[in-house]
Amino acid sequence: MEATNTILILKNAIIVTMDSHNRVFVDGAIVIQHNSIIAIGKSIDILTQFTSISHQIVDLRGQILLPGLINTHVHTSQQLARGIADDVDLLTWLHDRIWPYETNMTEQDSFISTLLCGIELIHSGVTCFAEAGGQHVSGMASAVEVLGLRACLAESIMDCGEGLPASWAARTTEECIKSQKDLFVKHHNTADGRIKVWLGIRQIMNSTDRLLTETRDTAKELETGIHMHIAEIPYENQLIVETRGVDNGTVTYLEKIKFLQNNLLAAHTVWVNEKEVDCLAKAGVKVSHCPAAAMRMLGFAPIKEMLSAGVCVSLGTDGAPSNNRMSIVDEMYLASLINKGREVFSTGTTDPTAFPAETILRMATINGAKSVLWDKEIGSLEVGKKADIVVINPSSWSMMPIHDCISSLVYCMRTENIVSVMCNGCWIMKDKKILTVDEEEVLSMAKHASAELLKRADIQIPNRMNFV
Amino acid sequence: MEATNTILILKNAIIVTMDSHNRVFVDGAIVIQHNSIIAIGKSIDILTQFTSISHQIVDLRGQILLPGLINTHVHTSQQLARGIADDVDLLTWLHDRIWPYETNMTEQDSFISTLLCGIELIHSGVTCFAEAGGQHVSGMASAVEVLGLRACLAESIMDCGEGLPASWAARTTEECIKSQKDLFVKHHNTADGRIKVWLGIRQIMNSTDRLLTETRDTAKELETGIHMHIAEIPYENQLIVETRGVDNGTVTYLEKIKFLQNNLLAAHTVWVNEKEVDCLAKAGVKVSHCPAAAMRMLGFAPIKEMLSAGVCVSLGTDGAPSNNRMSIVDEMYLASLINKGREVFSTGTTDPTAFPAETILRMATINGAKSVLWDKEIGSLEVGKKADIVVINPSSWSMMPIHDCISSLVYCMRTENIVSVMCNGCWIMKDKKILTVDEEEVLSMAKHASAELLKRADIQIPNRMNFV
Repeated sequence: MEATNTILILKNAIIVTMDSHNRVFVDGAIVIQHNSIIAIGKSIDILTQFTSISHQIVDLRGQILLPGLINTHVHTSQQLARGIADDVDLLTWLHDRIWPYETNMTEQDSFISTLLCGIELIHSGVTCFAEAGGQHVSGMASAVEVLGLRACLAESIMDCGEGLPASWAARTTEECIKSQKDLFVKHHNTADGRIKVWLGIRQIMNSTDRLLTETRDTAKELETGIHMHIAEIPYENQLIVETRGVDNGTVTYLEKIKFLQNNLLAAHTVWVNEKEVDCLAKAGVKVSHCPAAAMRMLGFAPIKEMLSAGVCVSLGTDGAPSNNRMSIVDEMYLASLINKGREVFSTGTTDPTAFPAETILRMATINGAKSVLWDKEIGSLEVGKKADIVVINPSSWSMMPIHDCISSLVYCMRTENIVSVMCNGCWIMKDKKILTVDEEEVLSMAKHASAELLKRADIQIPNRMNFV
Repeated sequence: MEATNTILILKNAIIVTMDSHNRVFVDGAIVIQHNSIIAIGKSIDILTQFTSISHQIVDLRGQILLPGLINTHVHTSQQLARGIADDVDLLTWLHDRIWPYETNMTEQDSFISTLLCGIELIHSGVTCFAEAGGQHVSGMASAVEVLGLRACLAESIMDCGEGLPASWAARTTEECIKSQKDLFVKHHNTADGRIKVWLGIRQIMNSTDRLLTETRDTAKELETGIHMHIAEIPYENQLIVETRGVDNGTVTYLEKIKFLQNNLLAAHTVWVNEKEVDCLAKAGVKVSHCPAAAMRMLGFAPIKEMLSAGVCVSLGTDGAPSNNRMSIVDEMYLASLINKGREVFSTGTTDPTAFPAETILRMATINGAKSVLWDKEIGSLEVGKKADIVVINPSSWSMMPIHDCISSLVYCMRTENIVSVMCNGCWIMKDKKILTVDEEEVLSMAKHASAELLKRADIQIPNRMNFV
C-alpha cells in the first residue's frame, strides 16, 4: 500500500490539470515520486527529461487524467442505511429511521459502513472526502486507513434538542468537546497524513450556544476545520428567529456569535438570503452543495448567487439515505442540470449557459480541496502536490463521440468510465478493481451487518408492491 | 437473432411484473416461447409445470427482472452530435449547431448514429423507444432492425418557419405528408413487427395549419401515432397567442383545431396551465417527460398536476445534445429528484413523499407502453405479452445493501447494474455484451462519421480551457 521512492511516469494522457492557468495537456505526462507529483507537461518533454531515471512508464493510450475528486459532504456511517428512508417525510426520516439506525450502530458497523461507502467513492473517482459527522470515528478511521483514501473525519455532535434518543440526550457539552479532542489526538494526521480530524456540529437545533463557541475556539486551538449542517429547512431558520433573538435564520445567528470563519464547512446552506450570502463570502466560509439531497429533501440553494459573491462552493453526495447514489460523478451532472433549471425561478426561463462544465469541474476538484483546507496539497495536478489522480476511459458508448472534452467529463462521464484511481501516490483502484480491500467480502459483511442492525433498531420498511 | 419456438425458463429471479396487481414474485420464474411470455409465477410452481417441456432453464441466482424500459422521446439521429452544443443559449444551440448538423447528415450517418444510440439504450435497459422525429428514417430503421430493438420511428417534419436552412425551407406540406406515407409503407410493421412508423411534427412554430390537420387525419387513416414537441418554451406560447388567435399557448390552439387525440405523444409539454392539463387528460394525450432536458433547457413541467389529472406520463431522454446521458435509468433517478424539488415552488417546501419510486417505475414501463400505443404487447411481464425483459444484478457496491427493492431500482440502480436485455424473445445483451452489433466497430464508425459531419457542417466547438 505504501508509496515507494520509485519514479513512475504516466504518459500519453489528456491531462486536465485544474491548475490556476486551466491548462490541459493534450498529449501529456506526469511524473510521480513517493506520494507527490514531481513533473507534469507534454509527453515529449517529460520523456526526454525523466525516462533515464524512471522505474516505470505507463502508457495511458489517450485516456484522461483528472485530479482526484473531492466529496465534501458524506455520511460514511450511513452507508448501511441505504434504502431505509426513501420517499418518507422528514420527521419519519429522522425519528423512525435515521436516529434508531445511528443509535444502534457499533464501531464495527461504522467500520463496515465506511468500507462499503469508500468502495463506492473510489469507483466514483473520489480520493478525498469530508465526513459530515457520524458515529464511531475510530471505526471510520480504520476503514479509511485500509481503503487508502484521504479524509477529514468528524463525529456527530449534539448537546441538546427535542426528542433525542436517550443515549444522545445524556451527553454534556464537555463530553462532546472532550470526545473530539481525544479523537483528534488519536487519529489526526495518521495513515501517512491521509486522515485529518475535524470538529462536528450536527445542526444548530441540537447545539447549545456553549457548544458552538467552544467548538469554534477548539477548532482554532487545534488548527482544524468545523463541519456543520446549516440552514437546511425553513423550520430551522424560523426556530432560530423565535429562540435566539435574530431577525433571520441560522447564518445570521452564527455571524452574530462570530462562528463564521474560514475553517467552517457549511453543508447544504439552502435557506439563506442575500445578506447571509455576503456574510458567508466575507468570512471565507466554504459551502458544500449536495444537489441530489437538495432536490429530494431540502430545496434549491442559491449557488449561483454564492459563486457570484465569491463563496467557495464544492460538491457533496450527502449520506446514502438522503441520496442513494454516492457518486460525485452523478452530482456533477446534477449540479449543472439543477442549477440551470433553477434559473426559471429567478428569471422566468432556464439558462443553459449557467453553470458551465468548467465551473462544475472546479467545484469537484480545486474548490473541494479549498473546502477541506487541503488545497496546498490536493485539488489540482501540479508539481509539488500529492499524487491523487483519476484515470478515465472515454472510449465507450457512454461518452463517445467526444467533441468537447471538458463538457464530456461533466455531462457524459459515468462511474463506469472511471478505470483507475491513485491516492497519495498509490493505486487504490486499477482497471476497475479495488486493490486495497476485497469488494466481495465487504459486500457480504455489509449485507449481514445491516440486516442485524435494522433488526436491533426495530426498523421495518413497508412493501411498496404486492410481494408474492 | 430470431426467436425460435424453443421453450426457455428463467428461474430464481425477483420478478417485478408491473402488472395491474403490482405483483412481485420474490422467487419467481418466467416461461418464454418464441417471442412471448407463456407463463409467470413462483419458481416452484413454474418448474413443476414446465420443466418437462422446456428446452433451457436459466438460473438467475436472485437477480431482478423488470419489463424492458421504454424511452418515449429520443432523437437517435442526434447521437453523433453529443457534446456539440453544451452550455450554449437556445438560439446558438438550434441555428449554429443542431440545424447545420442535421441538414448535413447522410442516411449512413443516421444509420451509424442510431446504432450508437441503440447501444447506449440497450445498456440502459431500454427495449423500445419512440424516435422524436429525425433525419433519414430509413437509416434508423436499418439500425433498429440489426440492433434487435423495438421502435416507433418518425421523421422530422417542418413546412414553414423563420430562418430554416434552405433544403428544409423548400419542403411543401404535400411533400411532408407524402414522405411519411412512403416511409409507413416501407417500414411499418417490419423487423418481425418491431418497427412502427409514426408521424412527426417538429414543433408548432414550424407547422402550417394545413400540416397539422393533414397529419391528424393521416394518422387516423394509417392507425398510427403522432410525435410532437409541445409547449417547450414561453416564447412558443407567446407566438401562438400573437399569430393564431387563442388566449393561451400551443395546447389551447391544438385543442381548438381538434389535434389533441389519444394517439398524440406530446414531448416536454412544460409551459401548460391547469386548463390545458385538463385538455390533455380529456383527450387522452400522452406526455413524455424528459427531466434532464427540462432542467437544462426548458423548465419544470407540471408533472404532478398531470398525473393527478389522469394524464399518462412516461419518460424520455431527449437527444444527446440536450442531455448527453441517454439513460432511462438516470432519468428515473432525475424524475424523482427534480419533481420532489419542484414542490418547493408550489408549496414552499420540497416533498420527499412526492413521486415515490413505484410511480417512477410505472412511468418507465407500463406508462411508456401506453404512450407508444403498444401496451397490449409490452410494458409489463404478463402472460401473452412479448418477452421484453431486463436482467439486473443488484449485488454490487452501487446498490447494496438493499432494504427496499423497489426504491433501489429507481434511486440506486445505474446502467452498470443492467447485465442482460431481451427484446421480442431474443437476448440482445448478455453479461453486458451486446450480441447484435459489434460495439467497438460502431464506436469507431461513429468517431469517424461524426468528425466528418462536423467538418462538412462547419461546426466548431470553442475550447473551454487552455489546451497545451
